Amino acid sequence: MRQVYLDNAATTPLYPQVIEAMKTALEQYGNPSSLHHLGAGAEQMLAEARGEIAKLLKVSPGNIIFTSGGTEANNLAIKGTLAGKNRGILITSSIEHPSVLAVFARLEREGWKVLRLPVDGQGVVLLDKLEAALREPTALVSIMAVNNEIGTVQPLQDIVALVRARQPRAVIHVDAVQALGKIELEPARLGVDLMSVSAHKIHGPKGVGALYAARPDTLTPLLDGGGQEGGLRSGTENIPGIVGFGRAVMLTRQELARRTAKVARLRERFVQGLQELPCIVVSPARGVPHIVAVSFPGYRGEILLQALSGKGVYVSTGAACSGKKGNLSHVAEALGLDDETVTGMLRFSFSALNTEEEIDYALAMIRQVLAELAFIRGRRRR
Amino acid sequence: MRQVYLDNAATTPLYPQVIEAMKTALEQYGNPSSLHHLGAGAEQMLAEARGEIAKLLKVSPGNIIFTSGGTEANNLAIKGTLAGKNRGILITSSIEHPSVLAVFARLEREGWKVLRLPVDGQGVVLLDKLEAALREPTALVSIMAVNNEIGTVQPLQDIVALVRARQPRAVIHVDAVQALGKIELEPARLGVDLMSVSAHKIHGPKGVGALYAARPDTLTPLLDGGGQEGGLRSGTENIPGIVGFGRAVMLTRQELARRTAKVARLRERFVQGLQELPCIVVSPARGVPHIVAVSFPGYRGEILLQALSGKGVYVSTGAACSGKKGNLSHVAEALGLDDETVTGMLRFSFSALNTEEEIDYALAMIRQVLAELAFIRGRRRR
Repeated sequence: MRQVYLDNAATTPLYPQVIEAMKTALEQYGNPSSLHHLGAGAEQMLAEARGEIAKLLKVSPGNIIFTSGGTEANNLAIKGTLAGKNRGILITSSIEHPSVLAVFARLEREGWKVLRLPVDGQGVVLLDKLEAALREPTALVSIMAVNNEIGTVQPLQDIVALVRARQPRAVIHVDAVQALGKIELEPARLGVDLMSVSAHKIHGPKGVGALYAARPDTLTPLLDGGGQEGGLRSGTENIPGIVGFGRAVMLTRQELARRTAKVARLRERFVQGLQELPCIVVSPARGVPHIVAVSFPGYRGEILLQALSGKGVYVSTGAACSGKKGNLSHVAEALGLDDETVTGMLRFSFSALNTEEEIDYALAMIRQVLAELAFIRGRRRR
Repeated sequence: MRQVYLDNAATTPLYPQVIEAMKTALEQYGNPSSLHHLGAGAEQMLAEARGEIAKLLKVSPGNIIFTSGGTEANNLAIKGTLAGKNRGILITSSIEHPSVLAVFARLEREGWKVLRLPVDGQGVVLLDKLEAALREPTALVSIMAVNNEIGTVQPLQDIVALVRARQPRAVIHVDAVQALGKIELEPARLGVDLMSVSAHKIHGPKGVGALYAARPDTLTPLLDGGGQEGGLRSGTENIPGIVGFGRAVMLTRQELARRTAKVARLRERFVQGLQELPCIVVSPARGVPHIVAVSFPGYRGEILLQALSGKGVYVSTGAACSGKKGNLSHVAEALGLDDETVTGMLRFSFSALNTEEEIDYALAMIRQVLAELAFIRGRRRR
């Protein structure tokens, strides 16, 4: 059966060059902490990958801390900033990724005051609400760069300017997992303190991510031990994963413009094709090109997803529910969508490895699935 | 140049079958949280690997939590048990791995009372000291199964019996990173609550480990987010790493007896060969066969290490210093070794992938290096 993967916001296929680089790393097995020749080789691989990530973000390699993924980077950024402190409020948005939301939920239970900013119908954080929130002494502000369910790009420059003007001592964290390689990301120029990124959203391996920290010395590590990563993230480094991350970042950096343009074309073709179908595009027009959330009112997203999976088209229910937990999405709720729209939602997410032909195939399969489901419904009614 | 890797306690070369399994996993890129067909494939790989680890430890798969390595498993076990609590003392040994020692150092700074049990000249925890320590209400006892620097095997059965008799409510954690695949490990039968293991010490990849938890519900996660691993370890699963871990465990389980016997033969041959050299075997005779700590009094371990590395023989300074930090080992101190013995220490560590010929080559190179260094010293004296 033909397979068309349109769930690139969940995870991406690895670039063949990434797999090649990882194979080499798997065969060179030294421990970077070892003093002998093989250890030095592993340390060299680590330094090269760190350099690649630093180059893409236009920061110094000394400000990059490797982690086991975006979730750990988010946890380290937020918990690592607040450990041992108890002053000020915490500000975030109502449409963050679970790895940020769940951290704030825990901090709230521990006694922190957490403000979750509302968003407009496009998913953009309401800046006047942020301004109002910043009247209170603020310990930390955490706002994602790109929303994972509908693709909204947050106005980070305005957000940073507001925070710096009102609460200059507040620490600013940006979850950029869904933004890396999709929009321009320069944490140092932007003036944020912390930024989380992940490999497996940019055709790198699962199990590796990184945190940019403007001032690593202000963080408390989550993992204590051998003192790797400048003491901020102990544990033998995941060399093959880190090498794969470095290679994926290198490829991302080299062809950023071409890939972005290609994904924009794929999106346009897809959205064009959707116009003939009974659906509503939920994603904002000015969002990232690789995410298109669509609702098919009168249908159930999960049933559409399974029917499409049966035809080799892989998508996500996106905002309708969070993975396997099946509860209504906090993002859908924050957007103020009606129940029918939410129930019928699917998230299609592209990468530059997709082709126009795949888009056409997916559109044809959507059409077919809708017709089949409508037919079944018609029979049931008789 | 010929390369002989005798630093298997630091990290091990991957089994070719592990690399093969990981390549396959790298090409199948679904996210286990995705509801479509590819997601289900990834979830299946995860379940199989979990089953392998459970089988080796003779526990239920539901008691295995995948982590990013031994360090995270140790941190999760100890911090995850104590989060939100403040009663009782903490008991550990004075020769634990840094990923346990550093956690206790942090907990001590946070106000916990930590007792570090002394060891005898063989590195065995003094049971009468444990018994005395257990007079105080105890929250947690954490003792490693096998010491990483000299290979001592702790009498876990006696330790568990003592703890259960004196402080039945104390949680018992065992860092078994250096023990997995080397000695019999049955946490459930042994009656411990938590046991940490790691892939890269048994010819699996770096960046993946696991924690056995008898009662996972009693742990507080270190990483909050999407709720993976039963809510105890959020973050997209490191599928290729976990698949590699599963395969390494499967191979370990299948040939445990043969491999153990082979390593024991290699050790015997090595120790035999050392008898002609000016050195002292520091490791206990009844320790694990794969670790032999040796001291060359009058020489500096680090210089011997570099000279051997120059001849393609890769070893560690072991107890002399901890990796690159260069400070005197806490293990050497706990053993009560004199300065000359400590300064001259090297750790040789084997795996079943080593050969008798490699042992002979290493012995010849040690002899050559000692002669060269003695010659240089002789010239300097003139």
